[in-house]
Amino acid sequence: MKKLLIFLLLITSWSAFSQTQLTAKEIKVNEQRIEERIFELAKFGKDSSGKSYRVAFTTGDQEARTWFIGLMKNTGLDVSIDYAGNIIGKRKGKNPSLKPISFGSHIDMVPDGGNYDGCVGSIGALEIIEVLNENKIITEHPLEVIIFSNEEGGTIGSMAMAGHLSAEGLKQKSQSGLTIAEGIKAIGGNPDSIQYSIRKKGDIKAFLELHIEQGGILEKEQIQIGVVEGIVGIVHWEVTVEGFANHAGTTPMNMRQDALLASAKLIIAVNEVINSVPGKQVGTIGKIAALPGAYNVIPGKVTLGLEIRDLSSQKIEQLFLKIEKRAATIANDSKTKISFVRQANASKPALTEKTIQQKITASAKALGLTTKFMQSGAGHDAQEIAWIAPVAMIFVPSVGGISHSPKEFTKAVDMANGANVLLQTILKLDKE
Amino acid sequence: MKKLLIFLLLITSWSAFSQTQLTAKEIKVNEQRIEERIFELAKFGKDSSGKSYRVAFTTGDQEARTWFIGLMKNTGLDVSIDYAGNIIGKRKGKNPSLKPISFGSHIDMVPDGGNYDGCVGSIGALEIIEVLNENKIITEHPLEVIIFSNEEGGTIGSMAMAGHLSAEGLKQKSQSGLTIAEGIKAIGGNPDSIQYSIRKKGDIKAFLELHIEQGGILEKEQIQIGVVEGIVGIVHWEVTVEGFANHAGTTPMNMRQDALLASAKLIIAVNEVINSVPGKQVGTIGKIAALPGAYNVIPGKVTLGLEIRDLSSQKIEQLFLKIEKRAATIANDSKTKISFVRQANASKPALTEKTIQQKITASAKALGLTTKFMQSGAGHDAQEIAWIAPVAMIFVPSVGGISHSPKEFTKAVDMANGANVLLQTILKLDKE
Repeated sequence: MKKLLIFLLLITSWSAFSQTQLTAKEIKVNEQRIEERIFELAKFGKDSSGKSYRVAFTTGDQEARTWFIGLMKNTGLDVSIDYAGNIIGKRKGKNPSLKPISFGSHIDMVPDGGNYDGCVGSIGALEIIEVLNENKIITEHPLEVIIFSNEEGGTIGSMAMAGHLSAEGLKQKSQSGLTIAEGIKAIGGNPDSIQYSIRKKGDIKAFLELHIEQGGILEKEQIQIGVVEGIVGIVHWEVTVEGFANHAGTTPMNMRQDALLASAKLIIAVNEVINSVPGKQVGTIGKIAALPGAYNVIPGKVTLGLEIRDLSSQKIEQLFLKIEKRAATIANDSKTKISFVRQANASKPALTEKTIQQKITASAKALGLTTKFMQSGAGHDAQEIAWIAPVAMIFVPSVGGISHSPKEFTKAVDMANGANVLLQTILKLDKE
Repeated sequence: MKKLLIFLLLITSWSAFSQTQLTAKEIKVNEQRIEERIFELAKFGKDSSGKSYRVAFTTGDQEARTWFIGLMKNTGLDVSIDYAGNIIGKRKGKNPSLKPISFGSHIDMVPDGGNYDGCVGSIGALEIIEVLNENKIITEHPLEVIIFSNEEGGTIGSMAMAGHLSAEGLKQKSQSGLTIAEGIKAIGGNPDSIQYSIRKKGDIKAFLELHIEQGGILEKEQIQIGVVEGIVGIVHWEVTVEGFANHAGTTPMNMRQDALLASAKLIIAVNEVINSVPGKQVGTIGKIAALPGAYNVIPGKVTLGLEIRDLSSQKIEQLFLKIEKRAATIANDSKTKISFVRQANASKPALTEKTIQQKITASAKALGLTTKFMQSGAGHDAQEIAWIAPVAMIFVPSVGGISHSPKEFTKAVDMANGANVLLQTILKLDKE
């Protein structure tokens, strides 16, 4: 019994001794803790049918935020909520005159969404603080964990921080049923003082976001870390095809002005135009409604939602011009009218900081991880923050490339890889 | 003054004398009365926004029926409502052992429908009785005006009369919100005794229906009377295209399984197949829904409504087989799954009686009207009655070919032409 006690004491002290001896380059995140917290966070927000419904501003979102704030406080972070409802946790650095290195993501989700989008970057950011605490490392720069509000509803929290959330934007209905202003109030922000949540250019040394890829490229090519070169710009158009609604039994085939048949030709034309030039651009028609919408009536009016994304705004516009030309021919041939209304919610492409890209690559290499430069096809908070600070993003693989779905999944080892790369990149940035 | 009085007396007595002298071949319907009644009937049934809403079984339908029954009674018709809610007005003939010559149509409408579909044939039928009364003509055969219940909801009244309304059919929800059974009860029928509304083969000498064309052929070719050769059969399929819903920003173009892109190819294929053979067949995709239906998500599932109509069931099946083959190729090329579910509501083609077609043509010619043999692309009560009696249909032009729309319009002169042809055809049939 006595022997066992001495042995245990030896083990414990050796372990404590060896831990303090790890250099900053050797410290690692806790893979198990990350995954456990992902599962814990997944419990917040269900709709009546049991589907995940942690839409921003809803009860589920609010409960998840309260839980997350608790975790942040436990790590010793100085937590506050800014006027836009962003959760901000500050950790002092050795040199208070330096600008903070910021990192984080979001914990709200799309309806019936997945448990990794936003969550990996949020829990990963918190994990950085845990590991620094455990290894008693104080950085030169202050650190800042930011959990942005309502990312899925249009990167609202980061827009506010970049000074892009207008009075008009505050009045818009959010998915929760509340207006953005009402929603911000519900999570502890104050829409009347929204201008005080704006950060000026230079306020932040750099912003880093760890995120799941939400596509299938990394998995397909068996790459562990995606180094994001930029976040694509997105433009939406509402397309209206006007024909003439008529009786499907009594109108001969050659006397029809079928808005759905013309729409079908347009859908194919969009696909052909997007594929007509080399590059990573994507174009999608994801929405369609045909009126009146009955078996026995030729559709008289069809509305469609067209989206184009690319890292170059110029390319988006060139592709759209080609689509417009094709639409004019289709309209003429089918005796319909096709019109496009550009939506106000367009987001410009955002390029990430090359010097941080290099640090990410170097950190990954040092950890023995494979990397690939890629673009982010999805919008992210980093895109807004790019207006006021250098930004970077680290991607980890999504199994099957699935996202915005309950089937979304990222392996624990990949989440840990991403968080370790984030940690080492922050430490490299801190040395500058 | 005295001279004027004598002159007026002379005019009046000459006019009365000349009217009684008209032969059956010379009597004419009252064009003005027909149009006034069309306008009167149009006042029944409006929804909260003022749109026409005389959907079967609603208050508007019930009020219109009450008004119409009043008119029928004024003409001396012996009016009753059968168990299926059909309004039946009987006029005795000279020979009570003969089977009745029946004619009529319906006065219910589709939501936001027009004022001529069904109404022209109903008011035209009543006009025949008015003119026979005015000219003191008693036919050999009994006459019967039939206003069928809920034609627009699937020729319910005539289905019941032909013995095709099942217990299952009675349970279906109608457009009014009531089940068919509840609706029939609301208009004075009795769904529990529905079997007693069935007429046996041979119970009716012939059924004739005057109707607007609901297409643009007569107007385009400047023909006054359409002699209907048959009513097309109709088959509906619900088509499901299954791809894979994914993020529209992060899924490269070559990694997509876009259900809407595949659907677009199918819509075009349907159009090509229908146009690939000569004939009057029509094929329509009038319904489409894409899920989840957002700008930023590649549609994972699309449902479509396919309809094919033709006078030949065999041709419908041949066309469908071709569409299925094209769909298999599209599904294979686009990595989607396309399936077709035939709907239970199919109606078989119904041919009209050749000898009555000839009488219609002869009557029109005698009236100096141009005629054209044509098919009815729309379903009609005559289609059901064809199972139990020889039927015929007379079409009059629809301005612009518009139907099932508030813009539906038929000129008074055309309505009168149709009613005159109906009158003369009945008188010819009566002589057999």
